[in-house]
Amino acid sequence: MGQTLSHKIIKNHLLSGTPAPGESIGLRMDQTLTQDATGTMACLQWEAIGLETVQTELSVNYVDHNTIQMGFRNPDDHRYLKSVAERYGMIFSPAGTGICHQLHLENFARPGKTLIGSDSHTPTAGGVGSLAIGAGGLSVALAMAGEPYTLPMPRIIGIHLDNALTGWASAKDVILALLGQLSVKGGVGAIMEYTGPGVASLTVPERATITNMGAELGATTSLFPSDEQTRRFLRAMHREADFEPLQADEDAVYDELITLDLARIEPMAACPHMPDKVVPVAELDGLAVNQVAIGSCTNSSYSDLKAAALLLQGRQRHEDTDLLIAPGSKQVLKMLTREGLLDAFLDSGGRLLECACGPCIGMGGSPSSGGVSVRTFNRNFEGRSGTQDGQIYLTSPLVAAQAALDGRFTDPATWGPAPTKPELPADVPDIKNLFLYPPQDRSKVEVQRGPNIVPLPPFEPLPETLAVPVVLKVGDNITTDHILPGGPQVTALRSNIPAISEYIYSRVDPEFVTRAKDAGQGIIVGGENYGQGSSREHAALAPRYLGIRAVVAKSFARIHRANLVNFGIVPLTFTNPADYDALEQGTRLTIPAATLRAGGTISLSSAEGVSIDVSNDLTEEELAVIRAGGKLNAVRHTIED
Amino acid sequence: MGQTLSHKIIKNHLLSGTPAPGESIGLRMDQTLTQDATGTMACLQWEAIGLETVQTELSVNYVDHNTIQMGFRNPDDHRYLKSVAERYGMIFSPAGTGICHQLHLENFARPGKTLIGSDSHTPTAGGVGSLAIGAGGLSVALAMAGEPYTLPMPRIIGIHLDNALTGWASAKDVILALLGQLSVKGGVGAIMEYTGPGVASLTVPERATITNMGAELGATTSLFPSDEQTRRFLRAMHREADFEPLQADEDAVYDELITLDLARIEPMAACPHMPDKVVPVAELDGLAVNQVAIGSCTNSSYSDLKAAALLLQGRQRHEDTDLLIAPGSKQVLKMLTREGLLDAFLDSGGRLLECACGPCIGMGGSPSSGGVSVRTFNRNFEGRSGTQDGQIYLTSPLVAAQAALDGRFTDPATWGPAPTKPELPADVPDIKNLFLYPPQDRSKVEVQRGPNIVPLPPFEPLPETLAVPVVLKVGDNITTDHILPGGPQVTALRSNIPAISEYIYSRVDPEFVTRAKDAGQGIIVGGENYGQGSSREHAALAPRYLGIRAVVAKSFARIHRANLVNFGIVPLTFTNPADYDALEQGTRLTIPAATLRAGGTISLSSAEGVSIDVSNDLTEEELAVIRAGGKLNAVRHTIED
Repeated sequence: MGQTLSHKIIKNHLLSGTPAPGESIGLRMDQTLTQDATGTMACLQWEAIGLETVQTELSVNYVDHNTIQMGFRNPDDHRYLKSVAERYGMIFSPAGTGICHQLHLENFARPGKTLIGSDSHTPTAGGVGSLAIGAGGLSVALAMAGEPYTLPMPRIIGIHLDNALTGWASAKDVILALLGQLSVKGGVGAIMEYTGPGVASLTVPERATITNMGAELGATTSLFPSDEQTRRFLRAMHREADFEPLQADEDAVYDELITLDLARIEPMAACPHMPDKVVPVAELDGLAVNQVAIGSCTNSSYSDLKAAALLLQGRQRHEDTDLLIAPGSKQVLKMLTREGLLDAFLDSGGRLLECACGPCIGMGGSPSSGGVSVRTFNRNFEGRSGTQDGQIYLTSPLVAAQAALDGRFTDPATWGPAPTKPELPADVPDIKNLFLYPPQDRSKVEVQRGPNIVPLPPFEPLPETLAVPVVLKVGDNITTDHILPGGPQVTALRSNIPAISEYIYSRVDPEFVTRAKDAGQGIIVGGENYGQGSSREHAALAPRYLGIRAVVAKSFARIHRANLVNFGIVPLTFTNPADYDALEQGTRLTIPAATLRAGGTISLSSAEGVSIDVSNDLTEEELAVIRAGGKLNAVRHTIED
Repeated sequence: MGQTLSHKIIKNHLLSGTPAPGESIGLRMDQTLTQDATGTMACLQWEAIGLETVQTELSVNYVDHNTIQMGFRNPDDHRYLKSVAERYGMIFSPAGTGICHQLHLENFARPGKTLIGSDSHTPTAGGVGSLAIGAGGLSVALAMAGEPYTLPMPRIIGIHLDNALTGWASAKDVILALLGQLSVKGGVGAIMEYTGPGVASLTVPERATITNMGAELGATTSLFPSDEQTRRFLRAMHREADFEPLQADEDAVYDELITLDLARIEPMAACPHMPDKVVPVAELDGLAVNQVAIGSCTNSSYSDLKAAALLLQGRQRHEDTDLLIAPGSKQVLKMLTREGLLDAFLDSGGRLLECACGPCIGMGGSPSSGGVSVRTFNRNFEGRSGTQDGQIYLTSPLVAAQAALDGRFTDPATWGPAPTKPELPADVPDIKNLFLYPPQDRSKVEVQRGPNIVPLPPFEPLPETLAVPVVLKVGDNITTDHILPGGPQVTALRSNIPAISEYIYSRVDPEFVTRAKDAGQGIIVGGENYGQGSSREHAALAPRYLGIRAVVAKSFARIHRANLVNFGIVPLTFTNPADYDALEQGTRLTIPAATLRAGGTISLSSAEGVSIDVSNDLTEEELAVIRAGGKLNAVRHTIED
């Protein structure tokens, strides 16, 4: 039976388990990437592990998320990350060099390698045939320590591409079409592996747009084969030596196969407020557009920006439409400059922003009240732009640039003949000298901490018995945004667990933090789907810091459950969901932790005579992690042993 | 007796008074400029005046201060300013086009014209022989309405320049040398008029650096003659028609004359935390530098950035020194790009920021904790960078670029032969098409307000008698920062007096706002030098909104006293300063307002039998303004009459 490319790369990196759907597998990670927003915590965790040198082939520490520097916390974080990279043997990419995924694709991503990154859009590197997975900071720290990355073996969904894109359609429209068809849950537990004759028609930057935004399908990752397009791209990047041809066997068997005719793709837009609310642009004809933003890890390559620039050249943006451009890397900016295309942007009234994530993560560039903003980005969740009632549409650079000219959406049928696709020139400028490489002798490098960078607090092991009060009872569908709000004020405290813990549940119950502190230890009672949404690990780590030792809920969201385990909080489910009603804030419960068994049931009892059965679905390994007081403790034991 | 150039321009614009030192004079203002940080209030005041069209020759509405757009308030402000410009006949300069003073110099400033701007660095235009004065937003709004700008006739200080700059010295060092010599109070009540044979050696951008930072001398403005250098500059800007030769008479008599030998100027730096703490750079040899920032209205011209770029070209910044570059205008950026000098910045590791004020006003770019930052800016006040313990040094672009290369200050004697001064090329790109010009028919333009843009509250006239409590008693040297804090959170509320008033005295007495609101009306008791520091008019306007009708103090700072008058608050001084002790928070006083006479004395009395004599130094005109309930009311009466 033929193998998929995913299977081949997985087998090459398999350290434990069997690659059958649902089985737990442990993979060796060749490369890691971190970005500053999650990287400070990953580096604090790395430091807590206590090794002297990263154990990967390559670890790159990027700064791209928070580059505005409003106050000392932000530059202190950058300085800390630089010094950690220098001390422990990582490459450091300073602020302004570019967006981690674009830079990684240009400079480091390699066919057949595994990459784990503390950013959900890490699958971008799948554009060159790298198996690239986004994860929490702790998982990346552990990968840097040489630990395998453990995950349930994904299903492999084959996306069979026929023909080639035509007219005004571009790679962004491919992934938007898939999102419209499959929804934001369509890729959960799966690797989206692209195959079929249409693949050859797509350049690496186009493939990278598709694998990047595969994250919005909920996929574990997305993967393209490595072929002549890959060779051409790597050659342009001055690293043809990194090329290796890789593809699925001709008779590969996929868990599921979806066929897509590229020739039938048309310009699309994801409408507010979800990336899968996709309609053809033609249907939006006439809608006034207040802002256009071109950039982000999804669409900031040379080809993307050149396509937009050529459309804007010699013309002026509509005067009511603000136009923001953030190139994906200095390489891209230098190429645009060389070809006179920076002028095309500037002369059309565009605003040039730093080479960074910028508006895509709400770091500036917010639209006006109720403003319609057309963005080449990957997410349009409500409020993510920084403007609560902003109306965000996700499109390709061509659609966005056209909207900037017209001041509104128009029907692509009226745009005339489509431009030809920009090709990567042969002599792309090399910016590798802008990365900082670790020195030969790293022993004298001092890690530099600012007052907001606080070492990870130590967590003690799980005691034999816990006698703790319910410090909070919440309802169904609590998100990690409920647990820990986003926004610049709170996000600036990511390197400081004691400080950020002051915001836990602050928008749900302003008294929670005081109550939890007064109690010293406590448990939280939740309803269905507890902890859904973003993967931010601070939503488990900071509650643990506040003394939360267990969460009893009707059910848990997958990633948050994993984060609870990682930080030593016991996730328990009501054996009888009706028992939810028997617990109130203040109820004092005794948890016989010593009697916990993987997959077993225990009884919680209160002085008032309440007795409630709760189950767990922990593996033996997870239970050991919890008993140790969290994954870091567990790993340290292993490494020290 | 020969006339100074200042006298000539003043006489040409004199609408009232006699130009003798200390006399009140009223000047016709030919041009106005506003920037967004003060411009929204200026425009709200303009709207409150109620005219249909600006009465000036030219009024430009720039956006350059807050361009980051963290949330809706900022872009809503921009949209509001654009629509006001369109509605009332101003030119609008969108965010990202450049810094108001650099753009005004390049595109609009004219020899012999008067300019009033709601920004303290408006005197930049003095570099082409324009009499350019910074003022509060209300003064600019009134100038747009055709009202004269009234000020005490300044002393004219002649700065007689000999010889020419040599070696590594540049224009910035000229003004730093003057600051070191004269202090930040050295120009108070004066116009600094440059004269002598050394003038001819300075290009317009160099002159503009000097007049710009004359603001730090406390000068009313600074002025250069208009000569062949001016003609050359205007010709390069495609507006030789705006040229007019202008200079002081050969036998002009100055109130004071200071001689400066340009040939003896050496590279200087203003040390933390005041622009007049000036030392030769040589004395700082060895001090490690964590950040270098090149830009701001003081030093972001083509010549400035080219000089820095040529120094950096082919070399790398020190890896511990972050390097930020913000060009002063798109014209500058386009010229750098054309000459390959943007690459020089990028390749050296520099970070390219938007063409805007940026880090100079703490909008991003904060240094790390305790970090030494070398900036080509004009102010280094403690905390202004956004990092409270940041150590800010002000230097020329050459000194800053050299520090970026070395990672520390070094002695200029070791730098080798000095580079030649970049010349403006003849074919400078014209960016005038990037400004938005008002349409022919403005009657249908709708002013666009967001939820944070609130019309100016109306203020009633002064009643015959006030019976009000003391709602706050403070000590000596209260600054406008005490009265109204800065920072992004508060500054975002500049267009919203009800909202920003919630922050009045918030860092001094968190109960103040509640107490003032409960009282309905009140007075504040202060010590010496009440209201020193920044000119922010919100520090008078928002207290007035909270019901403050009078301030009784031992003495007042000049600008704040003027702001109190403008917003109808009576500034009273203790006839006997010891009476300060007799007043307490809560004392209820009766103020016989009807008996107020300009320059007279009245008695304040309390139910408890306290009786205190207070004086005023108001002119008849100022008293009329206060009786009307503020300058806007007074002017509206005039215009309606």
